[in-house]
Amino acid sequence: MFWFDGALRERSVVPFDLTDRGLNLGDGIFDTSLARNGRIFRRKSHIDRMADAAEILGIPFDETIAETALDALAAAIGDGAVRLTLTRGPGPRGLSFPKNPQPFLFGAAASLRGPLFPVLKLGTTSIRRNETSPVSRIKALPYLDSVLALEQASARGADEVLFENTHSRVACLASANIFAVFGRQLVTPPLSDGALAGTTRAYVLSKAHGLHFDVAERSLPLEKFSRADALFATSSLRLIAPCNQLDATTFPSESNEIVIELQASIREAIAGECGRF
Amino acid sequence: MFWFDGALRERSVVPFDLTDRGLNLGDGIFDTSLARNGRIFRRKSHIDRMADAAEILGIPFDETIAETALDALAAAIGDGAVRLTLTRGPGPRGLSFPKNPQPFLFGAAASLRGPLFPVLKLGTTSIRRNETSPVSRIKALPYLDSVLALEQASARGADEVLFENTHSRVACLASANIFAVFGRQLVTPPLSDGALAGTTRAYVLSKAHGLHFDVAERSLPLEKFSRADALFATSSLRLIAPCNQLDATTFPSESNEIVIELQASIREAIAGECGRF
Repeated sequence: MFWFDGALRERSVVPFDLTDRGLNLGDGIFDTSLARNGRIFRRKSHIDRMADAAEILGIPFDETIAETALDALAAAIGDGAVRLTLTRGPGPRGLSFPKNPQPFLFGAAASLRGPLFPVLKLGTTSIRRNETSPVSRIKALPYLDSVLALEQASARGADEVLFENTHSRVACLASANIFAVFGRQLVTPPLSDGALAGTTRAYVLSKAHGLHFDVAERSLPLEKFSRADALFATSSLRLIAPCNQLDATTFPSESNEIVIELQASIREAIAGECGRF
Repeated sequence: MFWFDGALRERSVVPFDLTDRGLNLGDGIFDTSLARNGRIFRRKSHIDRMADAAEILGIPFDETIAETALDALAAAIGDGAVRLTLTRGPGPRGLSFPKNPQPFLFGAAASLRGPLFPVLKLGTTSIRRNETSPVSRIKALPYLDSVLALEQASARGADEVLFENTHSRVACLASANIFAVFGRQLVTPPLSDGALAGTTRAYVLSKAHGLHFDVAERSLPLEKFSRADALFATSSLRLIAPCNQLDATTFPSESNEIVIELQASIREAIAGECGRF
């Protein structure tokens, strides 16, 4: 199911301008969110995050239209994944911003293929997350590093890939944030280490007080990360996903008490916001 | 002028699949070449370079169709810039390669706005070129770092931006390779430092013997780079472009003898291949 030009449509083929800068230069952003029972979980966080990313790139963003698209797609799919994409729109040849940008917004919804709370095997990669670029902190269209690293890691049996940044600090996964658990202490890389400002990451950070754990946004060298009691990934679609392996090292993450508590917490939050889990 | 679905067309709006991975993930490549007198300069180098990049990404590439598109666009524009874009085509949600990719190839041609051999002012940027990624060495769709860095540099009066890589070695410009001149010695960053395998870069490397200069592909710290006698950029559209400034440091690059010799050489090569300069 797609949202294009102000309306839902079944077919993915639409009239499109080949000079669009999203297609030609990766000049745009996207957002992926979870629809349950026809509603978007943490809808406002997703809209706010998109607005922040659009502002960083200087792309005009109409929140009302984005909300309309999100709601229409969520209602249409019921339970599934909803993606909005915003590009800077058409432009003449070259890199310079067009003088009067006509941003292009479209959306798509699809059923989820896997379970919520999947258990992940992580593989490392030699491709580093480039934390020197503002692009590393927003959900921007250029995803080719993640695509390539995941393809290589998949060939070695992994489901997700762990990126270090250019200073050999853990940054994130191909399409998720990462947390390491040490007792009742959680550590996740700061955004400045090349992590995306994920909405589920923010959810976990907000729950420390209520769930009685400590959480720190702190740089994590791989060696320290590998000594964690447990690891989990956060994303809008995989929510709180225990990671039971990193290359050859195993972690009892599925049975970690904080992981289980967070899964219960987010399950409840979804039921509260969307009417059911 | 555009090339789409096997034919030239004037209008840029075409039927397009919103699930295209080029648009959604930057999963694709492009090539930009110079048309003079209705012909592509160094046509084979461009096709070969595209084939190499497609192979690195695992995207099927039909050279014959690409040649047909290049020739049709060059004939249509006469003198101008021709761009081919190849994406991995439509795909389901997620990062994994589609099982049966249907790559999407399209082209565009436009008149050149500036002179050939423009004189450039370079500005530095805090965004590093990520040489750990294979994407840094191919003309891939994700160009957002270049877009952002150029926008920032432009605001400070620069025409182009100089990227260092994650080890503080000079890598390239936003859309060109870079050479430093020391006497009759040229130095350009090796591809492993995050430089694109540019066709005009390769042209310069091939001319050392005939034009009696030495050329080395060697890592260049910014400090050494800044002490060069002259700097020039190479690209398919700007050819041999002297750089007369890097932030506040000036260079007499326009009058450098090797720069002048290379400009004369490439002018002659274009006249030979395309019938006139």
